[in-house]
Amino acid sequence: MQQIVYVDGSFVPAADAKVSVFDRGFLFADGIYEVSAVLDGKLIDNDSHLARLQRSVGEIALALPVTLQRIVDIQKELIARNDLTDGLVYLQVTRGAAIPRDFAFPKHPKPTLVMFASAKDIVNAASAKTGIGVVTVPDIRWARRDIKSVALLAQVLAKQAAAEAGCAEAWMIEDGKVTEGGSSSAFILTQDDVLVTRQNSSAILPGCTRKAVMKLAEERQLRVEERAFSVDEALAGKEAFITSASLFVQAVVTIDGRTVANGKPGPMTTRLREIYVEFARATAV
Amino acid sequence: MQQIVYVDGSFVPAADAKVSVFDRGFLFADGIYEVSAVLDGKLIDNDSHLARLQRSVGEIALALPVTLQRIVDIQKELIARNDLTDGLVYLQVTRGAAIPRDFAFPKHPKPTLVMFASAKDIVNAASAKTGIGVVTVPDIRWARRDIKSVALLAQVLAKQAAAEAGCAEAWMIEDGKVTEGGSSSAFILTQDDVLVTRQNSSAILPGCTRKAVMKLAEERQLRVEERAFSVDEALAGKEAFITSASLFVQAVVTIDGRTVANGKPGPMTTRLREIYVEFARATAV
Repeated sequence: MQQIVYVDGSFVPAADAKVSVFDRGFLFADGIYEVSAVLDGKLIDNDSHLARLQRSVGEIALALPVTLQRIVDIQKELIARNDLTDGLVYLQVTRGAAIPRDFAFPKHPKPTLVMFASAKDIVNAASAKTGIGVVTVPDIRWARRDIKSVALLAQVLAKQAAAEAGCAEAWMIEDGKVTEGGSSSAFILTQDDVLVTRQNSSAILPGCTRKAVMKLAEERQLRVEERAFSVDEALAGKEAFITSASLFVQAVVTIDGRTVANGKPGPMTTRLREIYVEFARATAV
Repeated sequence: MQQIVYVDGSFVPAADAKVSVFDRGFLFADGIYEVSAVLDGKLIDNDSHLARLQRSVGEIALALPVTLQRIVDIQKELIARNDLTDGLVYLQVTRGAAIPRDFAFPKHPKPTLVMFASAKDIVNAASAKTGIGVVTVPDIRWARRDIKSVALLAQVLAKQAAAEAGCAEAWMIEDGKVTEGGSSSAFILTQDDVLVTRQNSSAILPGCTRKAVMKLAEERQLRVEERAFSVDEALAGKEAFITSASLFVQAVVTIDGRTVANGKPGPMTTRLREIYVEFARATAV
C-alpha cells in the first residue's frame, strides 16, 4: 500500500505529494513542524504537541491555515487511511508559496499544511532494550531553539555526525553544558537519585515528552532538578537517557565512547519508560 | 508569459514547478542556494557564485547532481526561455527526497536541483538613487553563516522587522558590532576615507559582490580594512552602503532612523556603484 499524505486539503499518494518550489518552507525554512506518536491507532500526548505548535507559529507570526480541531481530524484520517497502528504523525505548516521570492513576509500569505504518517514500533524498539550511544558536538544552532522550526540543518549535521560514529543521537554542547539532543531532550540521574534536565529557555526546545516524563516522575515523589549539566556529570551519574515523541524514553549507555555506569539501561530509565508507555496508552485519543 | 522554472532536468511553467514534500530542503532546510545577477541577458560575476556554491555544498557534504558547466547551461537556458534581460537567476540544491524522514543523510541521496529566473531592473532601481534605511536586530543566526544554506528563518525575521519599519534591510548585530545585512554585506566609509567591511569568517557569508567591490576599490588605490564596525562608527562615518548580487552597491542613509552623514547617497558609494556596474557589464558572460 502506498503511503497517503495530506497536502493542503487533499489526501494523495506519497509520490504525488508535492509543494511549489516557491513554497517558503523550501526556499527559506519559513515553517514549523510537530511530530506526535501513535499507539494502537491513537494519538499520544497530542494536546501538548498542538499547544507547542500554536506557540511556535505565534513566535514567527504565522497563522495556521486550519483549526487545531481540523488538524486532529486530519491526523486521525491519516491514521485510518494508512492503516497505522504504531508510529508517528508528522505535520508541517509553512508561510506558503509566494512569487517573487522575497525574505519579508508576503502581504497575503497562503500557508501550506503538509501532514503524513509513518509506521514505527516505538514500544518494542530494539534500542530501548540495549540503550543508545551519543556523541557530543558543539551546539551551533540559532538563538531561538524554543521555536520548532524546519531550519534544521544544524541538527541534520549533528545527527549525521552521530550516525557516522555508529550512534543514534548527538548531544549538543554549549558553554561546557549539554543543551539537548539533535531531536530529543537529555536527562541524567545523579548518584543522589536526582533527575536532572536542562531548564526551558530559548536554548532548547520545550520537549513535550520531557514535560510529561518530569510530571510523571514528580507524581511518584522523584526529585527533578531543571538545570544544565555537563558530560562529566553525566558520566559520573547513575543513568542517562533521552526523551522524544518518536522514542519515548531511551537509555544513553555511552557518551563519546565512554560508558555511562555499567553500560546498560538503568532501572530508573527502564521504569520511567514503562511509566511513560502506561501514561501514553491511558491518555491516547 | 508564464515564468519557466527548472526542476530536476525539466523546464516547466512555474505553476507546475514542484518538489516532493519529502524533499530534505522542505523538511530540514538541508540545501544550499545561490543568486546571480543578469544584465543584458548575461550573467554577472557568475564564476564567483559557482565557486561559493561548490564550497557551501562541500561544507555540508552534499554532492551537486550536475556539473558546474551544466548549471551555467541551465542558467542561460532560463534566461532565454524567460526572455530575461535584467534580473536574477536563482539556484537551489538540496539533499533530495528521502522516505522515511530521518535527520541523518540518506544512504543514497538523489539531490534536487531547482533553478528559476526573475526580472529586476537592478541598475535603475529607485532605491539606488535615494539610498535605503536599515534597522538593527540582534544576530540570532547559527554559527556557520559562511555556508549559504536555505535555513534562512532568522534572516526572514530580520528582514520582516526591517519591512515593518519601512526599511529595505536589517543589519544584524553581535557583540556590539555589525555582522552583515539580512541578505547583503555591510560597508562604511570612515572620515579618513577608509572603506571598512567585516572580515570573512564563520560569522558572515563571504559576499561575492563584497569581494568584487573590495578588489575594484583596491585597484583604484582606495584603502580597504577588513574588520568589524559598530553602528556608532557607521553613524560617525562619511558613508555607509551594502552590497549584494541582487542590488550591487546601495547607499545606506539611515540606521534605526538616525541619519548617516547628510542622509543622501555619498559620492564614494555612487562611484563604487558605477564602477561595479562597469565591471559587471565588462565581464558578463
